[in-house]
Amino acid sequence: MKAEILAVGTELLMGHTVNTNAAEIARMLAEIGVGVYYQTVVGDNPERLEEAVHTAVARAELVVACGGLGPTEDDLTRETVASVLGLELVRNERWAQRLMQFFERRGRVPTENNFRQALVPVGAELLENEHGTAPGIYLTHRGVTVVLLPGPPHEMRALMHDHVLPRLSQALEGKSGTAVLVSRVLRVVGLGESRMVEALEPILSSQSNPTIAPLAKSAEVHLRITSRAETRAAAEELNERCAQQIYERLGPAIYGEDEVTLEEAVGRLLRQQGLSLATAESCTGGLIGHRVTNVAGSSAYYLGGIVAYSNSLKAAGLGVDPALIERDGAVSEAVARAMATGVRERTDAGVGLSVTGIAGPGGGSEDKPVGLTYIAIASAAEVQCVRREFWGGREQVKLRAAQAALEFLRRHLLGTVSA
Amino acid sequence: MKAEILAVGTELLMGHTVNTNAAEIARMLAEIGVGVYYQTVVGDNPERLEEAVHTAVARAELVVACGGLGPTEDDLTRETVASVLGLELVRNERWAQRLMQFFERRGRVPTENNFRQALVPVGAELLENEHGTAPGIYLTHRGVTVVLLPGPPHEMRALMHDHVLPRLSQALEGKSGTAVLVSRVLRVVGLGESRMVEALEPILSSQSNPTIAPLAKSAEVHLRITSRAETRAAAEELNERCAQQIYERLGPAIYGEDEVTLEEAVGRLLRQQGLSLATAESCTGGLIGHRVTNVAGSSAYYLGGIVAYSNSLKAAGLGVDPALIERDGAVSEAVARAMATGVRERTDAGVGLSVTGIAGPGGGSEDKPVGLTYIAIASAAEVQCVRREFWGGREQVKLRAAQAALEFLRRHLLGTVSA
Repeated sequence: MKAEILAVGTELLMGHTVNTNAAEIARMLAEIGVGVYYQTVVGDNPERLEEAVHTAVARAELVVACGGLGPTEDDLTRETVASVLGLELVRNERWAQRLMQFFERRGRVPTENNFRQALVPVGAELLENEHGTAPGIYLTHRGVTVVLLPGPPHEMRALMHDHVLPRLSQALEGKSGTAVLVSRVLRVVGLGESRMVEALEPILSSQSNPTIAPLAKSAEVHLRITSRAETRAAAEELNERCAQQIYERLGPAIYGEDEVTLEEAVGRLLRQQGLSLATAESCTGGLIGHRVTNVAGSSAYYLGGIVAYSNSLKAAGLGVDPALIERDGAVSEAVARAMATGVRERTDAGVGLSVTGIAGPGGGSEDKPVGLTYIAIASAAEVQCVRREFWGGREQVKLRAAQAALEFLRRHLLGTVSA
Repeated sequence: MKAEILAVGTELLMGHTVNTNAAEIARMLAEIGVGVYYQTVVGDNPERLEEAVHTAVARAELVVACGGLGPTEDDLTRETVASVLGLELVRNERWAQRLMQFFERRGRVPTENNFRQALVPVGAELLENEHGTAPGIYLTHRGVTVVLLPGPPHEMRALMHDHVLPRLSQALEGKSGTAVLVSRVLRVVGLGESRMVEALEPILSSQSNPTIAPLAKSAEVHLRITSRAETRAAAEELNERCAQQIYERLGPAIYGEDEVTLEEAVGRLLRQQGLSLATAESCTGGLIGHRVTNVAGSSAYYLGGIVAYSNSLKAAGLGVDPALIERDGAVSEAVARAMATGVRERTDAGVGLSVTGIAGPGGGSEDKPVGLTYIAIASAAEVQCVRREFWGGREQVKLRAAQAALEFLRRHLLGTVSA
């Protein structure tokens, strides 16, 4: 079943509201095997809305329109869809009653416009909205299913769950060739997108089911495997076989799956190994601590640390020898090592993790450009350090440095650091 | 000028990525008076991408396509647009050189696919991308301007600002009848959206030009004022008159305008008053330090601090009396005060800012529910503390606590704290 999502609203078109509804509806439809082929956004403008509805019903088997069902004159979706399909609107007395009650309870008098929300195209079903005054509408006309939903996300979501998905699932059941789409995401760190694609070349080029889509995120890449099959179990089986092949090629570069974050993966390793962690951050300014503590239960292994932004705090808080800072500079291997050792000793942690770098935009030089970062780990056995150069603006450098530090720690815990 | 935004990517179509780019591009275009009439999303599918490009160039005067310029075989935008417009692709040697250097510096060898990123349709301009390997493309063909931009938001944003908007503004200058839309955003903190709307009721209900749109953000509200006029100066004048009225009603609840963040507003006040800052964070885990150091030049006033996640670090790192923690608990007014005093004294800072709270999901009790947070400020003159209760999941509580701490500090620096 080919679907199109049509989002209606000038605030979306002008970008004052981000179109999260379309993304959410697309994910919900994929779960029952419906593929979205187009998403369109138009404003509260009668001609362009009409054109968009025309186009959608001509090329899709399912059109989900969201927004424009409110009580104001700007809200045109109901009337426009009815007119494009050549259907008359009739008043649903049950909903008109509900509207009356709604206004009575609030001590207000409904206007004529308010009652437009009780109008339904002939032959359509009204979907009761528990959270607002605009009901949903569900109809099938000349082989095309058209669904109208209100724009507020929680109203849209409830109607999709309670009314639309069950009806669509039922409609799909009889159809042969209906497939379920199931996705699985492998999260890869420490490899660029193009290097990863190279490593996976033979797999990627031979795939059509499952499909494998690499998606570059901030300092990591997600590989989304999506299988289409008649049942969820069969699709999962296809995903599993494909994931196996990818694991064989990428090995420990895959740090987790689906919603697992890098800080969660690191947290699991620390727990398993019974190690506590302390951090000494300079250029990242607390971002590593913030990410580590985003994980529920992180207090079991994270002690805290020092944000040693100034040189005086590197000395006073971490015991870094000021002569060392003088000699090598605050952004140097020697200082990174001293910071990691210092925070480990002062907090009695199993592992000390430190980062010192130049986030920019100022502070760079020929020898030490903006983006230069040293990351060190002190454990009971040794101190390891890596030198990295990150590009991008200040926030990007901070994000990449924090990501690289967490990845260095993960590799250290896995015993696969080759510093 | 009628514009269409075409976002390309299966991850957008399937809803795995929310289409924030389209919203951002639409806002940027509105600022120079270009109205977006359609937004479309298609996946990495050659036929549908081709159809979408066809449709867009037929109905719009400006088409901004975003995404699908990467180095993999999935990335089809460049080739598809060239083929729809009937333009050949030629290699831009300068960019090919840049790509070589990019890979050399990383010790990697580019593949043939990587060099596709140096291809440009005949007659088009290449827009240099400082943040990635995919350049932008700008061309005008049979009266339609077509712009291609890479999908990563920070790359898209930089290219729009540095290259696309200046070129479009220049192209628009001669055209008569062009109305300019100019927006101005007032950023409000410490007032909920509905309380703010109440305070502004008489202004909000009487406006049509400018329009005033409140937009709820994470722990703050943005008020967007948008005026339409024939010139930028006239629109700015209308915005100014409206902003005056809002300032009169909301006063210091407005912390900044447009892109200014709360941490920047705080940084300016610290600079003006010649004060240095140190932080002692428990539940926020480093988030406050991270936000403070997102501001370029923050090393001028931010010394750093302690992430005192464990009780042992509260004692060892900040000198909080363990008996106090035993008596009142780590989440208490007494401990928050001792943390702020401790970090101020140990770092010799002008101001010490502390946060201790229960981020959840575990660790709450009847007396001390999840979300309970104490925030304290120690200055030369005094120590002030507030008690707050935040709702939401772990990350929400952390965000709200960091926001409230920065706001408390701002109010302290303004001399308007009434703790």
